[in-house]
Amino acid sequence: MKDYGTIDNLGFARVDLARQRRQGVPEVVYGAGKTAGQIAAILASLRDHGQTPALATRMDEDKAKAVADALGDGFAYFPEARLGRLGTPRVPDGHGTIAIAAAGTSDLGVAEEAALTAETLGNKVVRLYDVGVAGLHRLLGCVDELSSASVVVAVAGMEGALASVVGGLVDCPVIAVPTSVGYGASFGGVSALLSMLNSCAAGVSVVNIDNGFGAGFLAHRINHMGICR
Amino acid sequence: MKDYGTIDNLGFARVDLARQRRQGVPEVVYGAGKTAGQIAAILASLRDHGQTPALATRMDEDKAKAVADALGDGFAYFPEARLGRLGTPRVPDGHGTIAIAAAGTSDLGVAEEAALTAETLGNKVVRLYDVGVAGLHRLLGCVDELSSASVVVAVAGMEGALASVVGGLVDCPVIAVPTSVGYGASFGGVSALLSMLNSCAAGVSVVNIDNGFGAGFLAHRINHMGICR
Amino acid sequence: MKDYGTIDNLGFARVDLARQRRQGVPEVVYGAGKTAGQIAAILASLRDHGQTPALATRMDEDKAKAVADALGDGFAYFPEARLGRLGTPRVPDGHGTIAIAAAGTSDLGVAEEAALTAETLGNKVVRLYDVGVAGLHRLLGCVDELSSASVVVAVAGMEGALASVVGGLVDCPVIAVPTSVGYGASFGGVSALLSMLNSCAAGVSVVNIDNGFGAGFLAHRINHMGICR
Amino acid sequence: MKDYGTIDNLGFARVDLARQRRQGVPEVVYGAGKTAGQIAAILASLRDHGQTPALATRMDEDKAKAVADALGDGFAYFPEARLGRLGTPRVPDGHGTIAIAAAGTSDLGVAEEAALTAETLGNKVVRLYDVGVAGLHRLLGCVDELSSASVVVAVAGMEGALASVVGGLVDCPVIAVPTSVGYGASFGGVSALLSMLNSCAAGVSVVNIDNGFGAGFLAHRINHMGICR
Amino acid sequence: MKDYGTIDNLGFARVDLARQRRQGVPEVVYGAGKTAGQIAAILASLRDHGQTPALATRMDEDKAKAVADALGDGFAYFPEARLGRLGTPRVPDGHGTIAIAAAGTSDLGVAEEAALTAETLGNKVVRLYDVGVAGLHRLLGCVDELSSASVVVAVAGMEGALASVVGGLVDCPVIAVPTSVGYGASFGGVSALLSMLNSCAAGVSVVNIDNGFGAGFLAHRINHMGICR
Amino acid sequence: MKDYGTIDNLGFARVDLARQRRQGVPEVVYGAGKTAGQIAAILASLRDHGQTPALATRMDEDKAKAVADALGDGFAYFPEARLGRLGTPRVPDGHGTIAIAAAGTSDLGVAEEAALTAETLGNKVVRLYDVGVAGLHRLLGCVDELSSASVVVAVAGMEGALASVVGGLVDCPVIAVPTSVGYGASFGGVSALLSMLNSCAAGVSVVNIDNGFGAGFLAHRINHMGICR
Amino acid sequence: MKDYGTIDNLGFARVDLARQRRQGVPEVVYGAGKTAGQIAAILASLRDHGQTPALATRMDEDKAKAVADALGDGFAYFPEARLGRLGTPRVPDGHGTIAIAAAGTSDLGVAEEAALTAETLGNKVVRLYDVGVAGLHRLLGCVDELSSASVVVAVAGMEGALASVVGGLVDCPVIAVPTSVGYGASFGGVSALLSMLNSCAAGVSVVNIDNGFGAGFLAHRINHMGICR
Amino acid sequence: MKDYGTIDNLGFARVDLARQRRQGVPEVVYGAGKTAGQIAAILASLRDHGQTPALATRMDEDKAKAVADALGDGFAYFPEARLGRLGTPRVPDGHGTIAIAAAGTSDLGVAEEAALTAETLGNKVVRLYDVGVAGLHRLLGCVDELSSASVVVAVAGMEGALASVVGGLVDCPVIAVPTSVGYGASFGGVSALLSMLNSCAAGVSVVNIDNGFGAGFLAHRINHMGICR
Repeated sequence: MKDYGTIDNLGFARVDLARQRRQGVPEVVYGAGKTAGQIAAILASLRDHGQTPALATRMDEDKAKAVADALGDGFAYFPEARLGRLGTPRVPDGHGTIAIAAAGTSDLGVAEEAALTAETLGNKVVRLYDVGVAGLHRLLGCVDELSSASVVVAVAGMEGALASVVGGLVDCPVIAVPTSVGYGASFGGVSALLSMLNSCAAGVSVVNIDNGFGAGFLAHRINHMGICR
Repeated sequence: MKDYGTIDNLGFARVDLARQRRQGVPEVVYGAGKTAGQIAAILASLRDHGQTPALATRMDEDKAKAVADALGDGFAYFPEARLGRLGTPRVPDGHGTIAIAAAGTSDLGVAEEAALTAETLGNKVVRLYDVGVAGLHRLLGCVDELSSASVVVAVAGMEGALASVVGGLVDCPVIAVPTSVGYGASFGGVSALLSMLNSCAAGVSVVNIDNGFGAGFLAHRINHMGICR
Repeated sequence: MKDYGTIDNLGFARVDLARQRRQGVPEVVYGAGKTAGQIAAILASLRDHGQTPALATRMDEDKAKAVADALGDGFAYFPEARLGRLGTPRVPDGHGTIAIAAAGTSDLGVAEEAALTAETLGNKVVRLYDVGVAGLHRLLGCVDELSSASVVVAVAGMEGALASVVGGLVDCPVIAVPTSVGYGASFGGVSALLSMLNSCAAGVSVVNIDNGFGAGFLAHRINHMGICR
Repeated sequence: MKDYGTIDNLGFARVDLARQRRQGVPEVVYGAGKTAGQIAAILASLRDHGQTPALATRMDEDKAKAVADALGDGFAYFPEARLGRLGTPRVPDGHGTIAIAAAGTSDLGVAEEAALTAETLGNKVVRLYDVGVAGLHRLLGCVDELSSASVVVAVAGMEGALASVVGGLVDCPVIAVPTSVGYGASFGGVSALLSMLNSCAAGVSVVNIDNGFGAGFLAHRINHMGICR
Repeated sequence: MKDYGTIDNLGFARVDLARQRRQGVPEVVYGAGKTAGQIAAILASLRDHGQTPALATRMDEDKAKAVADALGDGFAYFPEARLGRLGTPRVPDGHGTIAIAAAGTSDLGVAEEAALTAETLGNKVVRLYDVGVAGLHRLLGCVDELSSASVVVAVAGMEGALASVVGGLVDCPVIAVPTSVGYGASFGGVSALLSMLNSCAAGVSVVNIDNGFGAGFLAHRINHMGICR
Repeated sequence: MKDYGTIDNLGFARVDLARQRRQGVPEVVYGAGKTAGQIAAILASLRDHGQTPALATRMDEDKAKAVADALGDGFAYFPEARLGRLGTPRVPDGHGTIAIAAAGTSDLGVAEEAALTAETLGNKVVRLYDVGVAGLHRLLGCVDELSSASVVVAVAGMEGALASVVGGLVDCPVIAVPTSVGYGASFGGVSALLSMLNSCAAGVSVVNIDNGFGAGFLAHRINHMGICR
Repeated sequence: MKDYGTIDNLGFARVDLARQRRQGVPEVVYGAGKTAGQIAAILASLRDHGQTPALATRMDEDKAKAVADALGDGFAYFPEARLGRLGTPRVPDGHGTIAIAAAGTSDLGVAEEAALTAETLGNKVVRLYDVGVAGLHRLLGCVDELSSASVVVAVAGMEGALASVVGGLVDCPVIAVPTSVGYGASFGGVSALLSMLNSCAAGVSVVNIDNGFGAGFLAHRINHMGICR
Repeated sequence: MKDYGTIDNLGFARVDLARQRRQGVPEVVYGAGKTAGQIAAILASLRDHGQTPALATRMDEDKAKAVADALGDGFAYFPEARLGRLGTPRVPDGHGTIAIAAAGTSDLGVAEEAALTAETLGNKVVRLYDVGVAGLHRLLGCVDELSSASVVVAVAGMEGALASVVGGLVDCPVIAVPTSVGYGASFGGVSALLSMLNSCAAGVSVVNIDNGFGAGFLAHRINHMGICR
C-alpha cells in the first residue's frame, strides 16, 4: 500500500499533499460553494508544497479576480471555462492527441473546461466544435482528426446523439459529457445523459452533466496509460 | 361542422360509424384490455357497416386466433406486429413512398406495426431495417431510399439517435417512434423518447413509445395531404 | 447522395451554407446560449451567401437590439415570440392553411413562434387563440377553420387536452406543442407533454415543450408535401 | 368529540366497529395483501356487529370464491370490479344521480368499482361508457345525463382529457379517476393523473390511480350532503 | 344541451359571458402569465356584462396595483392570497360551513386563497390554522369545528399527513391541497401530493399543488349541492 | 484503530469473521440474489467461527428449506418475515422496550422482519399492528405502549402518515420504515418514503423501503446505547 | 396518556407550551416562509413560558437581525448554519460524544446546523470536516474519534458514500444527512439521499436533504437514551 | 476516411463485416429480443467471414443451447454472465492487468460479463469479488492488486460507493458499472448509477446499469492504448 502522506489541515479543509505522488496529479479545488478566500488558501497551500500546476473549477469572474489578487503572478483565469490555474501547464507527453468534439456553440464552455484541463496536465488537444449530428457532413469532415486521436471527448446537450455517432466512427475510448444545454424535456441535461448511457456504440463511457473537468482528467489518464506513473 | 353521424352502441363500446366519412379512416380497435369477444364484435360492427379495412392493434396470438374464428375469412393476423386486419388493404395512392427505418433487429415488431398500418391505408412502404447509427455506413448506404421518400418513420430504442441523424439527412417530415428496447437506464423507452423530443434536427416529431400504429397512421395522413379527403 | 456543400467556419460555429439546397430551408440559429455578436455573425454569413429569410429563435429584447444594430435593415424582431428574422418572408404557396390553435392567453408566445416561423417559410396561417377545452363551445365555434386547414398546430399547457380534442375533430395531421404554462404538478410542461404523447386520437405527434419553432417548421414541411423540393 | 367506540381486535387487524356511527359507512376491507381467511374474518366481524352492507375491494376470483365459501349467503362478488359485498345495498336516497363516465372499454373495471360502491351505499347511478374525447360527439350525446347529475365521476386512462372536458360542461362536482390503461409514456396512469390534477376546468378533484372505490365513496358523500348524518 | 352563449372576443382572450348561467359562477382569471392590462380588460368585460363578483388569481402586488388603478372602486386585493376580487361577495347560503384547516404558518397563503374564494362565492368559512399532526392535540382541539363542517379543506406541505388524519375524523368530503412548503425531498409539493393521493382515509380527493382557488371553488360546489343551480 | 481481523474467503464471498467483535453483531446475509448453497455456506462459516446468532434475510420458502436441510438443527425460518436464523436469540438486555407499530395488515411482513431482528439481537419487543391514522383512536389506544418504549419503529405504506403522528406523540427516537404496500401513485413505496423523509415531527429518521431488518438492527443499537460495546 | 397542555394561540401560530414537558425539548421554529415578526413573536412566547433554549432554523441574516432587535439580549445567530438561538445551551450530559463528519468544505453549513443543535440541547460534539472518501486516508485518520462516539452524524453531498464507509467502521448509530451540494445528476441532493437509503452498512438511517437540524436533534435523543426523560 | 467495407444483409440484420478492421473488434451480438435462430445466423456470418472471436450477450440458457446446437464446436456459453462466445480468446497483450472489483456476491453475473469480455479480447484479468465498502478492510486488503492494474472496473449495486472509494485509491482509469442489485429505493440500479456519476473521485466514468460487456470492452480499449490498431 502506497504512502498516503501528509495533510495540510486548514480547518475548513484538509489539503492532500500526497495526491500528486499517489495519483500523479495534485488535488483539484471544486470552486462552487467555497469562498474566494478558501480557494486561494487551498491553492497557496498546494503551491507552497510543490503541488502545481493546480486547478480550481467552477469559479465565476468575481471570485477569480479575488483569487488572482491573493495569489499574484502564476494564476491564470479562463472565463469561458470558469477555470483557474496556478502554475504552468506540463509539457505534452502522452500517447497521442485528445480530440474534444462539441455539438454546438452553446456547449463550448464545458468543452473548454475539458480541453484546458487536459492541456494543463500535459496533453496535446485538438478542438472540433459545432459538429452536431443534424448536419452530419460537418462531423464527417472531421473524421481524420477523430480517427487519429488516442481519446475522444464528445460534448453535447439536447439529445446527445454525438457520442453514439462518434463511438461508431473511431476505435479509441470515447468519453461522453452531457451538457445542460437545451430546453423543455432536456431536463437540464438528463436527456443527453440518458442517451449517452444507452449508446449503442461500444467503447463509450459517461461522466456527470457539464463535467468537462472530469472528462479532461480521465482523457489525460487514458492518454498516459503506462506512462504517467 | 361535419356530420358526426351514427353510433353503434354495443353496451361495452360505442362504435363510431362515421369515422371513415369524417376522418377518412375507420375507427381502429385498441386490442389491449379487451376480450377477444369484444374485439370481434367491434370489428364485425365495422364490417357490417362498410367500415373496412379495419385494424385491431396489440393482440397476442391467442386472442387473434379467437377473433379469426369468430370473423371467418377476411381477417388476417400479423404476429410480429401483433396486428389484426379485417378486409383488404387499399390500393396505394399517396404522394410518394413512406420509408420505415429501424435501428436494430429488436425494433422490428414496432416497425412492422407502422409498415402494415401504412400499407393497409393505401401507401407504398420501403423497409430499411438494422440501420442504427453505431454503424453509420449502414444508414448512409440507404440515403437514396431516404431522400426519395415523402415521409420517414424512424424507429429506435436505446439512445434513439437515429431520428436526429435521419432528420439531418432528409427534407421531408420525420416521425420518430421510440421503442422500449434497451436495458438499464433506458427505462422502458424513456431515454429514446427524450432523445427524440430534444432532436437538434428540425422537422422531427414524436409519437408514444412503441406506437408503431400511430406513426404509420400519421405517415399516411401526411402522404395523402390534399388527396385523402 | 446529395451534395453536402460548403461550410463557413467562423471558429465558434460552422455555418451550413448548403442547408437551403439540401433541405429547402436555411439553417436556423438557436439563440439561447449564444452572444448577440455570435448570432449576428451567423445571420450575416447566411445573408452574404443568399440563405434568407433566416430565423434566430429564443432571443430576448436586449440581444435582439444588439443584433438589429449589427445587421441594419432587413432584420425584424417579434418580442412576444422572441424571434428574429433577417430578410422577407416567402410568398405563401403550400397546399392549404396552417391553423394554430392555442388553449390560453398564456400560451401565445409559443403559438406566435410557430405562426411566424410558418409564415416566414411561405404558408398561410390562421390563428385560433384562447380555445381551451374548459369552455368547449369556444373551440367548437372554430370547427370550420380547423376542418379546412391542411395542418393544425395545437398549443397548450396545463393538462394539454386540446391536442386530443382537436385530433378527434379533424382529418389532417395535428402537431401538438406542450407549453410550460401551469403550476404545481404541471412540472414545467411535463403534464401537457405526457397528455399529448398519450393522446387517444390518431394522427397526433408531439414536439418538445415550448418548441413553437419546431412545430411551425414541421407544419411547413407537411403543407409543402410534394411541392417544396 | 364523538364516541370513537369499540374495536374488535383480531390480532392481525383491529376492526373498527364504530365507523358506521362515526362516519356513516362501515369500514371497507382493502383486499390486496390479505389472505382470503383474513378478509372473511373481518367481514364476518362487521356482519356480526351489524356493520353491513360491507365491501371488500381488489379481490381476485380465487380469493372471492374462498371468501364466499366462508361467509355463505349474503356475499356477492362482482368480477369485473373485483369487488365483494356482504349484505344488501341501501335504498337510494341522495340528492340526485351519480353519473359515471368512462373513456374507453378498457376502463370499465375501475368504473364498475365506482358504480357498485355508490350503489351499495345508497345512490342512483347512471353509466356512460366509451365516451372518450377522441370521438367528441359520443360525449356530447350524453350531455343531458351529465347535466342532470349531482356528481360526475370521470374515469380515463391514457391522456385523461375526459375530466377537463366534462368539467367544462357541468356545474356539479367532478371526481376524476385516472386509470392505468395505456402504454409507453402513460407510465401506469401517471399521465392521466397529471392531466387531471392540472385540469383547466374548475370543480375537478382527483383520487388515486385506479381508485374506483374512493371515487364512488366520495361521490356518495357529496350526494348525501346534509342528508347522511 | 344548455345554451353556451355569447363570447366577448378581446383578441388575446375569448371571455365566456355565459359561464355564470351555465356553471353558476363567472369565469375566473388565471393571473400568472397575463399582463395587468389583460387582466383588467377581462375583469372589465365581466363587470360590464354583469358577471360579478369576479376573481383573478396569482397576481403579485405590482400587477394588482395597476389593475386597481384601471378598474377603480369595487376592486379589492388580498396580498397574502395574491387574489383580486371585483364586486362584492355573495351572501352565504350553502348547506353549512366550510372548514379550512392548514398545517403550518407557511401554508397560510394557499389557505387564504381557498377561504376567500369560498367566501366570495357565498359560503360561511371557519379557519383552523397551524394544526399540523406533529402536535396532534392542536388538531384534536378543533374536532368540534371539523365535525360540524359540511366540507373540510385540508392544506399542508411537507409530508401532507393532515389530510389522512382529518379524513379519519370527519364524515364529510375532504378536499386536500398539497402546498409547495418544505425543502429537500419535498420536491416542491410532490411529497405532500403523493401522500394525499395515497391517503388511507376514504372520502378524500386532491387538487393541484398550491391550488387554493380550486379547493375553495369545489368546496363551494359541494356546499351548494342541490342549491346552486 | 480496531483489529479488522480475519476473513473466510469462500471464493464467491469473503465472510467477515471479526464483525461481531468490531461491531457487536455478526455479518448478516442478504439472501436475495444468492443461491441456497451460498447462503448455507456463509451461515455455516459464521457458525463454525462462533458468530451466532446469525441472520439471513429475504429468503423465500424454497431456499429456506434447502438451507435448513444443509444446516440441520439450530436453523429456524419465519415465513411471514422471510427471515432465517441460525442459533438462539440473545437474552434481552437493552435500556427498554422496542415498539413496532404497523399501519395495516398488509405491512406485517416488514414489521415482523424488524421485530424478529431486534428480538434475535437481545431486545424486548412489543407489537402494535393495524394502527393506521385513518382510525386514529386505534393508535391513541396504544399511547401507553408507545410512550414507555425506548425506541419506536413505525412501519407504513400508502401515505406513510403514521411516522409523523407517532413522532409527535413520543419523546424517544422513531425509525420510520416505508413499505411498498399501496397502489397507483404509491409507486412501490416512494410515496411513504417521501412522507417520512419530510416528516414535520423531529426525531424521525428513515430506512430504505421494506427494510425491516435495517430498522430492527438500528433499534437494537439505540436500545443498547452505552451497553453493547 | 400524558398531559398535552396549553397552547398559546397567536392567530398565525399555535405555540405548543407543553412540548418541553412532553418531549423533553421545546418547539423549534422553522424559519423559512415566516416573517421576522412571526419568528420573534413565537420565540418570545416560548421564552415567556420558560421554554428555552429555543431554536429557529433557516433564517437568513436580514431576518436574524430583525429578530435580534426584537428580542434583545439572549438571542444569538450563527450565520453559516443560518440558525438562531434564544437562551443558553444546556450543560452537556449525554452518554458520550456526538461526532459530526462532513465530506467537503461545501457541506459545512449543514454540518454546523447539526452540531449547534446538538450542543444547544446538551451534548458534547466533535467536528470532523473534509473527510470525503475520495481521500480515504483523511477519514481513516479520524477512526479514533469515530470509534469513541456514541452517535455519528455523516453529512455529504454528491454521491454520499461517506455514510456507508462510516457505517462500516463504527458500532454506534449513524445518522446520514444528504446535502444539496453537487451539480449535474446530483439533482439537488437526490443522488446522495438514494445512496444513503441504500447503504450496504447496517445501522444507518437517513433524514431529509440538508436537514442538519433533524440530525442534530435525533443524535441528541439517542445520546440521551434513558437519561432525558 | 477508413474503408467502411461490406455488409452481409440477412434481411433482419445487416452484419458489419468491416468492424474488426475498422474498430479492432468484431460486431458483438446483443442477444435480448433476438431469436436463437437470428443469433446463430449472425454469429455464423461473422465466423464465415473471419470475424472471430465473436460474442453474444444477454442470452438465457435455452437460447444458448439452441445456438450451440446450430453452431457446433467452437461455441462456448458462460451461464453466470449469460454470455456466448464463438472462437478462441485472443492471447493477452495489453499494457497491464484489468482488475474487476465487485461489491457483493449478487453482482457477480455482471462482473463476469466484464471479465470474460476483456479476456476474450486479449487482456489479463484479476477478479476481486465481495469487496464492498461496508467491510472496508476487505477492499483495503486488495490495494496491491488495485494499484498495479492498468484499468479498474468497479461493479456495485445498492449505493454504489465502491467506485468512489476505489477512485481515491488508484491512479489509473476507473470504469464504474452500476448494477440492478438492491431493493426499495435502489430503483433497479438508479441509485448506484447516480452515485457513480456524482463520484467525488476524479478519473471515474460510468457505463449503463448492468452493462458488464460495455465495461469490459472499454477496459480492453484503454489497456490497448497505442497497441491495438
